[in-house]
Amino acid sequence: MQIKDLGEFGLIERLIAMATRQRGGPDHGAPLGFRLTVDAGDDTAAWRTGVATELFTTDTMVEGVHFTRETTPWRDLGWKSMASNISDIAAMGGLPTYALVTLGLPPETAVADIEELYLGMLEINRQHGVSIVGGDMVRSPVAFITVALTGVHPGQPLLRSTARPGDQMGVTGYVGSSGGGLRLMLEHSAVPAKAAEYLRQAHRRPQPAVAQGRILSEAGVLAAMDISDGLADDLSKLCKASGVAARIFASQVPIHPLLRQAFPDRCLELALGGGEDYLLLFTAPPKLMSEVLPRLPQGAAVIGEIVAGQPGQVELVDPAGVAHAAGSLGWDHFTGDPHAAPDRS
Amino acid sequence: MQIKDLGEFGLIERLIAMATRQRGGPDHGAPLGFRLTVDAGDDTAAWRTGVATELFTTDTMVEGVHFTRETTPWRDLGWKSMASNISDIAAMGGLPTYALVTLGLPPETAVADIEELYLGMLEINRQHGVSIVGGDMVRSPVAFITVALTGVHPGQPLLRSTARPGDQMGVTGYVGSSGGGLRLMLEHSAVPAKAAEYLRQAHRRPQPAVAQGRILSEAGVLAAMDISDGLADDLSKLCKASGVAARIFASQVPIHPLLRQAFPDRCLELALGGGEDYLLLFTAPPKLMSEVLPRLPQGAAVIGEIVAGQPGQVELVDPAGVAHAAGSLGWDHFTGDPHAAPDRS
Repeated sequence: MQIKDLGEFGLIERLIAMATRQRGGPDHGAPLGFRLTVDAGDDTAAWRTGVATELFTTDTMVEGVHFTRETTPWRDLGWKSMASNISDIAAMGGLPTYALVTLGLPPETAVADIEELYLGMLEINRQHGVSIVGGDMVRSPVAFITVALTGVHPGQPLLRSTARPGDQMGVTGYVGSSGGGLRLMLEHSAVPAKAAEYLRQAHRRPQPAVAQGRILSEAGVLAAMDISDGLADDLSKLCKASGVAARIFASQVPIHPLLRQAFPDRCLELALGGGEDYLLLFTAPPKLMSEVLPRLPQGAAVIGEIVAGQPGQVELVDPAGVAHAAGSLGWDHFTGDPHAAPDRS
Repeated sequence: MQIKDLGEFGLIERLIAMATRQRGGPDHGAPLGFRLTVDAGDDTAAWRTGVATELFTTDTMVEGVHFTRETTPWRDLGWKSMASNISDIAAMGGLPTYALVTLGLPPETAVADIEELYLGMLEINRQHGVSIVGGDMVRSPVAFITVALTGVHPGQPLLRSTARPGDQMGVTGYVGSSGGGLRLMLEHSAVPAKAAEYLRQAHRRPQPAVAQGRILSEAGVLAAMDISDGLADDLSKLCKASGVAARIFASQVPIHPLLRQAFPDRCLELALGGGEDYLLLFTAPPKLMSEVLPRLPQGAAVIGEIVAGQPGQVELVDPAGVAHAAGSLGWDHFTGDPHAAPDRS
């Protein structure tokens, strides 16, 4: 059996099972008061250090798979490779701290390009207080960037596994804009200048929702994850981790007016499957939801509800009130199965 | 200018300078008592958590650059990709704790091969108390494995920057055996079976010197690094970080009898430039050296001395007492310049 048969997520599940079952040896952190509290499978791992909870995540971008030089200049690539990791810390309600940067590069790569890449990383790092404290550089026939990032949380991190039937589901802003920007660049679509600029920026410079994660966590929200593979697909993962199902109301999904203007017929599809928005998806009982929603930025909205049902199942209720199986609307890089998702370069 | 002109280490120096100069934003760890104590440039980064020092490192292996499937079966590859990271923690005198594993893989990769890879990781992890707590899996035309690993140290880590003139230099065991094993496999050399088995094992299953790192640190040794790129080259890096020079006495370099038997004419060259031994190189004043040496495993030896001089300069004193510039005997994957080093696949 090859990976493309099993799929990325199938293989990950197998490996997580192996890694947790076959663990052993001394726990060197224990004598110092360190205790693992969030294992593989959430946005980050987490452990208590005795004084705080520490978070730990990693994310990789490969040329030709996650980016092309055509749609992503080096500086934006630096920004995005760090943004996706900061977003994982944000999804736990944490604050980012230290990063290791691994660059796999062909020897013919221009040094100036790598300095551009770094400038993009350093720009977002200054906004979020991240320090690059090391890394690795290796020769590789294909360019790739791997960031490993730690973070801190003063208390209990937001998890994927704590959504409960009766919760409402919310998002922290407009979804689909990043996917719209990518679509625009790939198809060279003719759209009004202001919309084009907004969508391109959303794709090239996504803003991790660090402040929003802190707001959610401080308000007492327990369940969240970041939207990186697409709203419907990520919601399915959150539901699976929590052993619940969900219902999205299509008419409530917040779509930015400029995305709607640029892609009037496809904006809902982009909002559900576009990916790389790096907003947070979260759930909370209705009372808590109504308290926390006014404290979130423009676009934040309730988009549906958590229900009892087959774990991971997501239904889409269309504007006429008819329910459809949302299926998997995300994107599996291994099987190459686009489902209803737009192309992700 | 391309990377191959500047070289791996030249580019790393530039990027470290950028990353440390252009840092900014809030220090989210500070309110919780976290404080960065070892920045980029040592074997790992380190910070105080309030109750301990935490260590953080990453290391990558790329197919065709750091390994080939011919000389490294998947299970050994898993072992080695984790061993090189554990070795960095050992070089700080620390104990390893949590790992994130990133796999870049072609979709045609057999699932069974990846499970073998994982079994190799889990085997060494059980010996050293490492838990895999997450990671990433991405499609890539070339296979690569990146591990990010944390560790703990109850006090002050061993650094590269603390060697002083007057110190003696030691290694924690026989050097060059891993390089001998690789040479054996690449050249299909005819060597006695027992020697072949020993050398192959040294290349495929290197043992990180975690226990030895603890012994050194507890005894009060301050300066150490692990030998991954070759003794002479790594020594030069340690000297550069400390602002000192060094003199290696060729006759004192510990070479295993089976390496000598297999490669009588090239064993010194392999010992100086072979790499991937994952022993520790350390320095200490003579009195401390004489106290700590008997507590180290067979093969551990004093191999030279730290002297005042041009930072990073290493001299090799041959058995006749004549000094030679050791130059750079390591291997830069980007420039492809082999110096006197054996091929590293």
